[in-house]
Amino acid sequence: MAEEATNGASAGVAISGVLVQVSVPASKAEEAVTFYKAAFGAEEVRRSSCSKRKADQEQPALLCAELKIGSASFLICGQIEDSTVVKGEVAPVLIRVQVDDVEGAVSKAVQAGAQLQGEISEDEAACGGGALGKLVDPFGVSWAVIAPAKVTEVEA
Amino acid sequence: MAEEATNGASAGVAISGVLVQVSVPASKAEEAVTFYKAAFGAEEVRRSSCSKRKADQEQPALLCAELKIGSASFLICGQIEDSTVVKGEVAPVLIRVQVDDVEGAVSKAVQAGAQLQGEISEDEAACGGGALGKLVDPFGVSWAVIAPAKVTEVEA
Repeated sequence: MAEEATNGASAGVAISGVLVQVSVPASKAEEAVTFYKAAFGAEEVRRSSCSKRKADQEQPALLCAELKIGSASFLICGQIEDSTVVKGEVAPVLIRVQVDDVEGAVSKAVQAGAQLQGEISEDEAACGGGALGKLVDPFGVSWAVIAPAKVTEVEA
Repeated sequence: MAEEATNGASAGVAISGVLVQVSVPASKAEEAVTFYKAAFGAEEVRRSSCSKRKADQEQPALLCAELKIGSASFLICGQIEDSTVVKGEVAPVLIRVQVDDVEGAVSKAVQAGAQLQGEISEDEAACGGGALGKLVDPFGVSWAVIAPAKVTEVEA
């Protein structure tokens, strides 16, 4: 197909994973996991607890659970109650792409027309992420471009 | 794990597929496909054209393209310009679950706390869907519960 020539798959920035993330207030993360099991028969694949540091202030660990419906996985991530995510400035559903080079991936997306929200941050990373760039694309969709970081596994 | 006992995977309603759907105005669907290729190196897996009937009025065919980033697929679906989706009453990103029994799946989700938006409809179905139930869950996430229907493949 001629179409394939315009595909951007080999265009420089390697994306290693894509996941849908549902963001909920930290205090409701457990409730959300229970809800998705009851409502859509979701299975819990794993859960982790991620410490989020803001400036020099250590925040409580946040639940991040990976759920599976059919063959598709998505994340439920607790967010710090007073963060912008909970205030509704960011959509509850975002698409999270995992890359090695956050700066490169963000710059490519911005060049294509996406808007970076704030700056690429290292210490305010979301669940399971290192560097983080938050984007909103021209169609109103929120994206999180994330580099992998260590996550503390929680014992079941 | 004790956790597994509370998993709802065997709780009655079979979910055959889950996909993330990005809804854009019909006139911007091509632009969106081009954008996601440029911004995130998405590959176009396939595209289809779906006729959407509203009452007895035949609507123009709408582009619905499946894109893939890494190993994850998502849909870009054009929506009729004056539909509620475009007016911002529904989030641009929703999670689409494919089931055989829309009524059963919707009723299970509503029992768990989700809200049905409008009624389950047969003739106003979204791209690639037969019966359709639109839900908003207690965490503000939009879901489309869809039964499979025939889609007209467009020649590339």
